[in-house]
Amino acid sequence: MNKPEYAVSRRVDRLSGSLIRELLALTENSDIISFSGGLPAACLMPDISLASLPASISQYGTTDGEKEFRQTVADYVSRSGLAAQEDQVLITSGSQQGIDLIAKLFIDEGTTVYVENPTYLAALQVFGLFGANIVGIDIAADGIDLVSLKDHLEKTRPAFIYINPTYQNPTGYCYSEECRHELAELLDNTGIPLIEDNPYGELCYDGPPPKPICSLLRRTPWVYLGSFSKVAIPAWRIGYMVSHPEFATYFAKLKQGTDLHTNRPGQWWCNAFLKDSSGFKEHISSLRSWYREQRNAMEASLHEHFSDIAKWHMPKGGLFYWLELESHIDTGPMLSEALEKSVAFLPGFAFFAPGDVRGNYIRLSFSEVSQSDIREGLLRLSEVIRKNTAA
Amino acid sequence: MNKPEYAVSRRVDRLSGSLIRELLALTENSDIISFSGGLPAACLMPDISLASLPASISQYGTTDGEKEFRQTVADYVSRSGLAAQEDQVLITSGSQQGIDLIAKLFIDEGTTVYVENPTYLAALQVFGLFGANIVGIDIAADGIDLVSLKDHLEKTRPAFIYINPTYQNPTGYCYSEECRHELAELLDNTGIPLIEDNPYGELCYDGPPPKPICSLLRRTPWVYLGSFSKVAIPAWRIGYMVSHPEFATYFAKLKQGTDLHTNRPGQWWCNAFLKDSSGFKEHISSLRSWYREQRNAMEASLHEHFSDIAKWHMPKGGLFYWLELESHIDTGPMLSEALEKSVAFLPGFAFFAPGDVRGNYIRLSFSEVSQSDIREGLLRLSEVIRKNTAA
Repeated sequence: MNKPEYAVSRRVDRLSGSLIRELLALTENSDIISFSGGLPAACLMPDISLASLPASISQYGTTDGEKEFRQTVADYVSRSGLAAQEDQVLITSGSQQGIDLIAKLFIDEGTTVYVENPTYLAALQVFGLFGANIVGIDIAADGIDLVSLKDHLEKTRPAFIYINPTYQNPTGYCYSEECRHELAELLDNTGIPLIEDNPYGELCYDGPPPKPICSLLRRTPWVYLGSFSKVAIPAWRIGYMVSHPEFATYFAKLKQGTDLHTNRPGQWWCNAFLKDSSGFKEHISSLRSWYREQRNAMEASLHEHFSDIAKWHMPKGGLFYWLELESHIDTGPMLSEALEKSVAFLPGFAFFAPGDVRGNYIRLSFSEVSQSDIREGLLRLSEVIRKNTAA
Repeated sequence: MNKPEYAVSRRVDRLSGSLIRELLALTENSDIISFSGGLPAACLMPDISLASLPASISQYGTTDGEKEFRQTVADYVSRSGLAAQEDQVLITSGSQQGIDLIAKLFIDEGTTVYVENPTYLAALQVFGLFGANIVGIDIAADGIDLVSLKDHLEKTRPAFIYINPTYQNPTGYCYSEECRHELAELLDNTGIPLIEDNPYGELCYDGPPPKPICSLLRRTPWVYLGSFSKVAIPAWRIGYMVSHPEFATYFAKLKQGTDLHTNRPGQWWCNAFLKDSSGFKEHISSLRSWYREQRNAMEASLHEHFSDIAKWHMPKGGLFYWLELESHIDTGPMLSEALEKSVAFLPGFAFFAPGDVRGNYIRLSFSEVSQSDIREGLLRLSEVIRKNTAA
């Protein structure tokens, strides 16, 4: 888009079009078998009705969030292994807002930040918008490349490192216990703040998820981001940050200018949902069973159609497969061809840090596709790839 | 707060503590007669229950907002005199988010912006946080000082001018028709973008509100901000921006990084509330009657206790009185003394642009105080002021 004649900020030059947004629009066409979105399965969402919502909740609320809900979230996070107090919890308007607040707290134009390579697309967009110098550190199926991380640390000190170590978006990778401990020690020794984003931890299919890396830190400051979008109802836009109380004070002030506070009916609903502990446990259990079947169906179809054209690692949780094509072709231009065959995927390039983009990757989501469509869609997609590889 | 040892952004040095936030905490003590908040009257809020909320609304939504709701808002804004199309409407998480998005679109460190002096506190905070050079243009009861505005325009061109011309917060002032037309002409001739914030327009007590100034513009770009917090339920955090479609594209991209989209149940609720046109009309009519009585009660008590110590202009709408004390004393330090007498007000200094702060002003809200408390509270406050004036 050209700059208009009036003066806008330099930030606007860094405002990238959102591939996700444009793709969500495309896949509104229901004929398309879409592996592209990251939408949780609508059929598993709990009842959203609010018949008993109290009238007292109608007024403006506090910026930090509802006191009782903050305590409920602190208890919930503590059960996952990260001891948290109510005053460390800030309720956010989706965990995306946490990323915006982190950018506001840490990033000036030119500030160096570390991310995983590849990483969550919308984090790249926000950090880039604020003018960060984004450095990507490679990750593999068992975690971040610690050798590469140490090499980078000898050159530039980042304001923070942002990671999604548990069933990552886009790769589905999960850091091993060994990697978690080594990373925690490295961060403690260097004092680099850790931003741990964990929207998918509850969606584990082969045993319980590891404890948050934040729980292993003894010294360096940290922020832990969570969300109710993947375990409950995304439409509420209810997320949370847990951090040092000192950080929490900054974030609350920054949040006040951003939207005053998060919507209260959503906080009320999520609080009630979490407090019903047997109902919540049962819900999480059915999410895991359902998504596990979906993952297994995708794994089987990939073996059938992709064994000779791609490599992948079966994810133990989350919503995504990450395919590396054997052939070094760029998957971006293949998307329109795939759409002609009524199948959608997400090209991998968008998930890489600027300057280190690799083209031969594909992200596939198994969350919102029937098992028969998984089979049919992967067949069609493999045909598109074979055609392009042969060419 | 001292800067921590890790590196945070320069922005944090500009992060002001929020007087509003701290005061809201103070006035949670129910013994205090509080004229300080800007909370709408809870007793007038419509039923928030959601028994019929459709399950299909649980999934992630679009960044721009619900299509049907955007059309409803466009129609609503058009009825106020500003012709608007659905594609010009962006649903925001409260109109506060609109201010954040405007800062993101326009403000680099050092960018000059014009505001009214005094102006909305949280706009000052956000523009300041983004590093704006904030220039305040004086306003009087009939509008902005056009001579001063022209003088400033000869010196520095701002990225935009932000105004709240209809029953302003904090002053209650409303621009005259003449001022509106002259300002529109000046902006059209200079090409300065207009940001018109209008949360209080519906709360008019002496005849209908004037048409938005944006509706008078022929050439210069504009953004119009609205909110459902004052006419319906603040807890939902539902606001909107109407702007040129070109601006709307930028704002949607910026919003995506900020919180993906605004909560959908709130959009659904506000849409249903607005679409019930006779119910909505009746609701607005009862808001106007109730607040008019409150305003009249405050006017009478001010005449009784403040005639010789302050000047004011009776507001034709909104929620606030703005008092200029005859004596040039600073009202800031009086707040703790007033709180000892169990009465709270908002000192005027916080509403002025940096470098042009005037101390002898007070903002009083008449929205959430009973008429007997208005009488008692204003008596006590006048005593505190008299004591300080005599000293």
